[in-house]
Amino acid sequence: MSQEDEHKFQSNRQKIELASGEQIEGRNPLQEALRAGRKVRQLYILNRANKASTNDPLAKLAKQSEAGGARVFYVDRAALDSIAISNAHQGVIAIVEEYRYADLDAVLRAEEAAGTSPFLILLDNLQDAHNLGAILRIADGAGVSAVLIPKHRSVSLNAVVAKTSAGAIEYVPVCQETNLTQTVLRLKEAGFWIYGTSDAAAEKYYDVDWKGKVALIIGSEGKGIGEKLLKHCDFQITIPQQGEINSLNASVACGIITFEAMRQRGL
Amino acid sequence: MSQEDEHKFQSNRQKIELASGEQIEGRNPLQEALRAGRKVRQLYILNRANKASTNDPLAKLAKQSEAGGARVFYVDRAALDSIAISNAHQGVIAIVEEYRYADLDAVLRAEEAAGTSPFLILLDNLQDAHNLGAILRIADGAGVSAVLIPKHRSVSLNAVVAKTSAGAIEYVPVCQETNLTQTVLRLKEAGFWIYGTSDAAAEKYYDVDWKGKVALIIGSEGKGIGEKLLKHCDFQITIPQQGEINSLNASVACGIITFEAMRQRGL
Repeated sequence: MSQEDEHKFQSNRQKIELASGEQIEGRNPLQEALRAGRKVRQLYILNRANKASTNDPLAKLAKQSEAGGARVFYVDRAALDSIAISNAHQGVIAIVEEYRYADLDAVLRAEEAAGTSPFLILLDNLQDAHNLGAILRIADGAGVSAVLIPKHRSVSLNAVVAKTSAGAIEYVPVCQETNLTQTVLRLKEAGFWIYGTSDAAAEKYYDVDWKGKVALIIGSEGKGIGEKLLKHCDFQITIPQQGEINSLNASVACGIITFEAMRQRGL
Repeated sequence: MSQEDEHKFQSNRQKIELASGEQIEGRNPLQEALRAGRKVRQLYILNRANKASTNDPLAKLAKQSEAGGARVFYVDRAALDSIAISNAHQGVIAIVEEYRYADLDAVLRAEEAAGTSPFLILLDNLQDAHNLGAILRIADGAGVSAVLIPKHRSVSLNAVVAKTSAGAIEYVPVCQETNLTQTVLRLKEAGFWIYGTSDAAAEKYYDVDWKGKVALIIGSEGKGIGEKLLKHCDFQITIPQQGEINSLNASVACGIITFEAMRQRGL
């Protein structure tokens, strides 16, 4: 341990002063954040014998973060556990510059410039961070233009979302909308077809035409899409089921519908 | 509070002695377990003012459980939190008779008697309880014959699976197999086609024929299907993606493929 490292380790035992910013936990999410060029402000990393080894994955992450201007702190497991928000920090927690939300107009202008038809996913008051993370992975894989979430009464981008998104959070534009109903009305004026899932719907998700400008609304876990928002849907669709529960996880339902839509759109 | 209740509450403050059995947490999972006829041995329930009300959801659960022979204990929130395995007990934790695994041969005989073609999902060393819960919901909704998991190095049925399965755990037959490769060989002899997902595969999941006796293997999070098992697959399939990460959550991938298969099979 160098003298400076020793100092960092010691000072850390006394008090951890987290910088402002978003917290990212785990090796892969940090690797993806670095790959996407996000600025790491502080890096808290497990202090262990082989930290000087160039092959040690934690040492590599420390080196890369430090090169980008991060302050690196070597701490013990108890200190990491005390900072952690998720259950699996894997020896590394980073404080990075805040998640940037995308601007919907900019997303739509970019699609228009590219001559492509946008496909948007709107999440109506989703509550579960694991579901948002999984949906960002779906959006990345399916080439979705953007994911829209409401500003209030919804999960927003955080460390658990970053972790469960397996890095997709760095690549998928996420727009925070003040009022989802207003956004839907605006999208309709711009020529979008609005699709919403409903258990009561008769039309099957694979029987509708998914071409053109599409906005797919996914309801919250348990409650589905709000009544007011559902009224504005041009298509109410269902995933036909034949079981006892007939209740798919929100991210699973989103994946089934999105990939069928993308199949039709020639992904 | 009746004298007996008072006694239960008091005795509980001193020491909780959990009966042997599986632990179920949350209102909906308990409701589903009761609906499916599972025997509740003990019920730990939040002690509160309105517990005598017939409209109180917790009181209803207590009454139903007691009618089936359960011992009911009224405890405070701290006691419930100390017993809980999941993060969301919602005021109720039950100890019920152990999860029963199904017998694969019995499942196959039942399908044969019904004149239907079995569709099995095999999970190769899945680790995450949330994913298993979500996959049981998929299996329920899609009418899958059974979900097969290996006996070792895999998540098995537990309270978190029960909770995230939203009750599907009570209806979907789950078989625990000693050796998944041996099981696959046995299924091939019985006329099954074996499908496995692989990033390296050229064939798209919607371009293959899903009719007949089908066994779909889903790989573990991160690692995919083991090399040995993948060799035995008749079809290696992929979900085409166009993003930066191209890594779907295991349960999302399972949902996309299973519901496309069921669409072809005329669900």
